[in-house]
Amino acid sequence: MNALAARRSGVQTLGNPRVYMRSDCSICRSEGFTAHRRLGVRLGTRHVVAALQVVDARTQWLEPGQIGLCETAWRALRAAPSDQVIVTHADEPASMAYLRARLFGHPLSDDAWRGIVDDIVERRLSDIEMAAFVAGGSARPMDVDEITGLTRAMVDAGQTLQWDDRRVLDKHCIGGLPGNRTTPIVVSICAAAGLCIPKTSSRAITSPAGTADVVETLMPVDLDLDAIRTVVRREHGCLAWGGSVGLSPADDQIIRIERALNIDSQGQMVASILSKKVAAGAHSVLIDIPVGPTAKCRTAAAAHALSETLVDVGARLGLEVRCHLSDGRQPVGRGIGPANEARDVLAVLRNQDAARDLRERALDLASILLEMGGVARADNARELAVEILDSGAAMGKLLCIADAQGGLRPPPEARLSAPVGAPEDGRITAVDNRRLASLAKLAGAPDAPAAGLILHVRLDDHVTRGEALATVTAQSQGELDYALQYAADNPDIWSLHP
Amino acid sequence: MNALAARRSGVQTLGNPRVYMRSDCSICRSEGFTAHRRLGVRLGTRHVVAALQVVDARTQWLEPGQIGLCETAWRALRAAPSDQVIVTHADEPASMAYLRARLFGHPLSDDAWRGIVDDIVERRLSDIEMAAFVAGGSARPMDVDEITGLTRAMVDAGQTLQWDDRRVLDKHCIGGLPGNRTTPIVVSICAAAGLCIPKTSSRAITSPAGTADVVETLMPVDLDLDAIRTVVRREHGCLAWGGSVGLSPADDQIIRIERALNIDSQGQMVASILSKKVAAGAHSVLIDIPVGPTAKCRTAAAAHALSETLVDVGARLGLEVRCHLSDGRQPVGRGIGPANEARDVLAVLRNQDAARDLRERALDLASILLEMGGVARADNARELAVEILDSGAAMGKLLCIADAQGGLRPPPEARLSAPVGAPEDGRITAVDNRRLASLAKLAGAPDAPAAGLILHVRLDDHVTRGEALATVTAQSQGELDYALQYAADNPDIWSLHP
Repeated sequence: MNALAARRSGVQTLGNPRVYMRSDCSICRSEGFTAHRRLGVRLGTRHVVAALQVVDARTQWLEPGQIGLCETAWRALRAAPSDQVIVTHADEPASMAYLRARLFGHPLSDDAWRGIVDDIVERRLSDIEMAAFVAGGSARPMDVDEITGLTRAMVDAGQTLQWDDRRVLDKHCIGGLPGNRTTPIVVSICAAAGLCIPKTSSRAITSPAGTADVVETLMPVDLDLDAIRTVVRREHGCLAWGGSVGLSPADDQIIRIERALNIDSQGQMVASILSKKVAAGAHSVLIDIPVGPTAKCRTAAAAHALSETLVDVGARLGLEVRCHLSDGRQPVGRGIGPANEARDVLAVLRNQDAARDLRERALDLASILLEMGGVARADNARELAVEILDSGAAMGKLLCIADAQGGLRPPPEARLSAPVGAPEDGRITAVDNRRLASLAKLAGAPDAPAAGLILHVRLDDHVTRGEALATVTAQSQGELDYALQYAADNPDIWSLHP
Repeated sequence: MNALAARRSGVQTLGNPRVYMRSDCSICRSEGFTAHRRLGVRLGTRHVVAALQVVDARTQWLEPGQIGLCETAWRALRAAPSDQVIVTHADEPASMAYLRARLFGHPLSDDAWRGIVDDIVERRLSDIEMAAFVAGGSARPMDVDEITGLTRAMVDAGQTLQWDDRRVLDKHCIGGLPGNRTTPIVVSICAAAGLCIPKTSSRAITSPAGTADVVETLMPVDLDLDAIRTVVRREHGCLAWGGSVGLSPADDQIIRIERALNIDSQGQMVASILSKKVAAGAHSVLIDIPVGPTAKCRTAAAAHALSETLVDVGARLGLEVRCHLSDGRQPVGRGIGPANEARDVLAVLRNQDAARDLRERALDLASILLEMGGVARADNARELAVEILDSGAAMGKLLCIADAQGGLRPPPEARLSAPVGAPEDGRITAVDNRRLASLAKLAGAPDAPAAGLILHVRLDDHVTRGEALATVTAQSQGELDYALQYAADNPDIWSLHP
């Protein structure tokens, strides 16, 4: 029996189990283990597949007869110090054959997609295998059949919600536009109108903030399924983080790798969006697609192609999908980063110094949803949305949702801030959303919720040399300095025309 | 200053530097480092970019103020215990933008290829980024321009050899056919004929043995550039491992990831082959392409397409390339795995119980090379090759090369072996090369040089139930058992027809 004594290494591997074995370990040698092999590790009835890290025998932190476990493996095995774990060979997961077949252009069956997704959920694929899967989805775009197969497999691999309501609404923005934080406003308006909109949102993939990151600065979002049901039963809507409830759990693993590679491909994006919506029990989904030279969708043609795919795949899954193309030439609102965006949201809901563009976009989307939900017609939906917002009913609903989720809290203020000045006089003719997002991320967003940017100018504004274009907010001097250096190195994030 | 005391963690990361920092470390916190970030780590004038692994503060192997370094980082920094290292943010390597652009279908300039290859050689790309690059090369095949750009960049990133000879020969097999170990025989024949053939070979990518693995069981292959020059000056040929001399160093990094993913794409294969040949100073290269249903090239059409690409890219790089299509329906010779194949090679060179197919293939290739080298014509080249082999001149040359490289040694005998019996009576109508290779790898090849297979039957042989089809050789009981289990689970590796 290949038994070794468990030792907690404390290494945090973010869901990708790793174990450490000494190079002179008899098991290591007799079994012919070499670095980067995949092992089965068993403790009682619990089992994980982990990547082997060989540790030189001269070092002392791992004693003979011990196996070091990373935090993921330690927790999955529910190990205690010196527990005896059994180590075995682990086969390559069966889905690697499907994954390779797809890379080389062979279409996959629904069962193959299920196999890939199950292996992702069970953490049987290593990070480099996940990276090959993600890259393959970019380099060889998936067709509608494939996306449908992947989406179904992603839904089936996780929890699903059912609601009593005849019509359950949802909305989503494909992202890429900093500050476009309409969701809390739209959900508040729709729920205030009595429509069922049990919104689960994700955290940032490659952006400085996801909706869950933003809402978390206002209220708890880490709700379990029962808590979501209770909130929605009471308030018709919720603003929860989707990751904590096990809807489409493969998505979080895929997103983790997409984030590390800074890749987000269309097929995986459609599967990611729609799998969460189907799993969340939605019937009608509105999708916001910002279009602009530095948005995720660069041209109207690309946006229409994406819309078509979303509508087609949605239809195959029994989901009514509508897409709304919006202006993606510049950020929305003033803030970028979780807390800064949360303040913009509150300003719109309170009708106090609201950023006009954020307000208008939220009203555009809410109107369509009111119509999809059957409480308004195309010709009076906007009027109803404005009334709900201006009357304070939407803010009231946000407060009720926050109360149901654990209570409203003020978004955190940043410890540090510094302005980014205009390098010269001129009129602003373009804004680079991607580099603005990088700037906010370098400042610490989303991991530091108060970090990010506050924008002071918009397209067509005239500025003079030295005038603040934006304020960088940060929690650490290192990150602030780093962001300012990036801003100095990239004086053309804002294009100035004399 | 972000200074921490170096501590050797002993973790072997195979060229992919990793550092370990405590989660409560003030630098970790003040700089906003989170898991999987990329850091710059400096000691004196030496610098590496490493992936951050966050270690829980409750564990004790890393003390406050310490940073754990993996073996790769420890050696690259030439650290000593408690040396103060400086930790900084590291940007995403510039080539990631090129890598993503290619995934999404944008053609790359020569400079972009150079950027990618330089980042690979300098270990600036993480394993998941490398995996995305490798997968992208499979999912979106490279065209001739791209392959030429990649090949040139791979040549330029490493050492190159020059020779005084007017015509320098080389040969290569694209692999995929277990046991097809013609190289030591062909090099011996050509060098015995006075032709210059400074052969550098690679280790196995996804196969149970590469030529370097096989030759290493007979003689040292880990020669530096000067040693290669000395051997070739004396003997006209050598049988060295290419990885140790820095020819096309990016290739080894790419191969490491291809091996882990079990992926080997055509464009990367062509770049890998030709970059090594150009860097090794070859003028004329013969490439063996085995064709068969379970070989790397499955059809004659695929082999012709590959030939064309090899010839085209070669021409752009000033290299005369000829391709030889060979029968890839079954393994060549009897042995699979480094030592087992080495014994087959010696049997052919000694004309003692030689495997006929291995002898004939080696003579086919040697004849073409003798003609390319100008010492024979098409109509008398084979005669010359046979004469050199049968007279013992080729074996004499192998002995001289071995002597020059450090001395001939006998290939190791396996500690353990067991037969694989025929599940029923019948005639052998097909052999699955891929699963035979898997079987040999499960037995421990190529890491355990004596491990692998000895085949007892060939296509069209009649066997009776229980008769040994092959013998599995292994160094550890765990691997032997595992291989035998695989053989039992795959009774159709050999197709038997009643």
